[in-house]
Amino acid sequence: MSEAPALLFDLDGTLVDSVYQHVLAWHEALSSEDIELSVWRIHRRIGMSGGMFTRALLRETEQSLDEERLHRLRSTHAAAYKRRMGEVRPLPGAQALLRRLDELGCRWAIATSGRSETAQHCFDMLGVPDGVPIVTRDQVAHAKPDPDLFLEAARRLDVDPQNAVVIGDSVWDLLAARRGRMLGIGLLSGGYGTDELERAGAYRVYSDPADMLDHLDEIGVR
Amino acid sequence: MSEAPALLFDLDGTLVDSVYQHVLAWHEALSSEDIELSVWRIHRRIGMSGGMFTRALLRETEQSLDEERLHRLRSTHAAAYKRRMGEVRPLPGAQALLRRLDELGCRWAIATSGRSETAQHCFDMLGVPDGVPIVTRDQVAHAKPDPDLFLEAARRLDVDPQNAVVIGDSVWDLLAARRGRMLGIGLLSGGYGTDELERAGAYRVYSDPADMLDHLDEIGVR
Repeated sequence: MSEAPALLFDLDGTLVDSVYQHVLAWHEALSSEDIELSVWRIHRRIGMSGGMFTRALLRETEQSLDEERLHRLRSTHAAAYKRRMGEVRPLPGAQALLRRLDELGCRWAIATSGRSETAQHCFDMLGVPDGVPIVTRDQVAHAKPDPDLFLEAARRLDVDPQNAVVIGDSVWDLLAARRGRMLGIGLLSGGYGTDELERAGAYRVYSDPADMLDHLDEIGVR
Repeated sequence: MSEAPALLFDLDGTLVDSVYQHVLAWHEALSSEDIELSVWRIHRRIGMSGGMFTRALLRETEQSLDEERLHRLRSTHAAAYKRRMGEVRPLPGAQALLRRLDELGCRWAIATSGRSETAQHCFDMLGVPDGVPIVTRDQVAHAKPDPDLFLEAARRLDVDPQNAVVIGDSVWDLLAARRGRMLGIGLLSGGYGTDELERAGAYRVYSDPADMLDHLDEIGVR
């Protein structure tokens, strides 16, 4: 008999509609440091750990980023994102999905590469109940595509990673799921294509939380 | 002997890095009319004609859009985009590509679903020389995925559509190319995936204008 799965959610682009705001906030921060990078390339790196993100940028722009500049970039991004935060909404079906999981007694957690300061606003918007494990970037050594964030979330739920399913909108979520030997579900709501998510190993791809809610049986949630 | 091809360029996402700003400007305009639509869904519709775009929204949101509301939406979008226009840059290699085409004596034109008022800023930024045919939305009956914009651009260059190659970043450009029996080249710089562009009929997919410039021989431009 297989055990009922626990669900580990990414946050930006998976439960809240915040990816494009993050992308343009990074674009603004990079421009302010005279680092010119096309917006779509930033989009494709979002959701990676900040360290990997900036190392990847380094490779693409052939510029050097010392610690001070990196710190400045991060705080300019945070300020630029906060200015756009008022536009951010929960994704369709996000609250309904989480409520349904609670009704079914299905365990779930959130694991995000974001920092707790910007993520808190999203948790409030979603009405995440007390007691739900929330793992943020500052709590683990390595972010996605390393599996640490999701493994820590599984540990806090006291679930074997083999019974955990990761839900994310980016290839980095799905790669992290595979690194941790977890199943991965891709959502299109972060703006990536079906093919990109499937090639990164998605077991299923849905449009958004509402679409996933309609297909919970495909994941073994009953 | 095959004739040298003429190139018909889309503008937003193909020559200038403006897609994400347009997407969030539409999101802002729609929110102001209490039409809640996920950002990624707007992204997937960008580049369509305004009329089809709003009809597609109508289908997805099941709201009614009378002429007055439609007009308000368009002007709120234009104002919201203009506020973001300062962030918009030419895409890497755009100016170099156009210059190279001129050196090679290859004929080219621009055909955009945008209105001439917002497009002019991009032409200035790109340094489009006088005499290059520019077809904007207001000059044809139907926009993409209808082929009218590109067919009109070919007509102004006095080129048989069969010798024209369309370059665009969205599936709507590629579908319009096929409708007009033209070859289509997809660029990733608008934020769509390779697979989406190939499935819409792209003959080749490049990252951006710089990448295309490196592969002009694959298109028969010499």
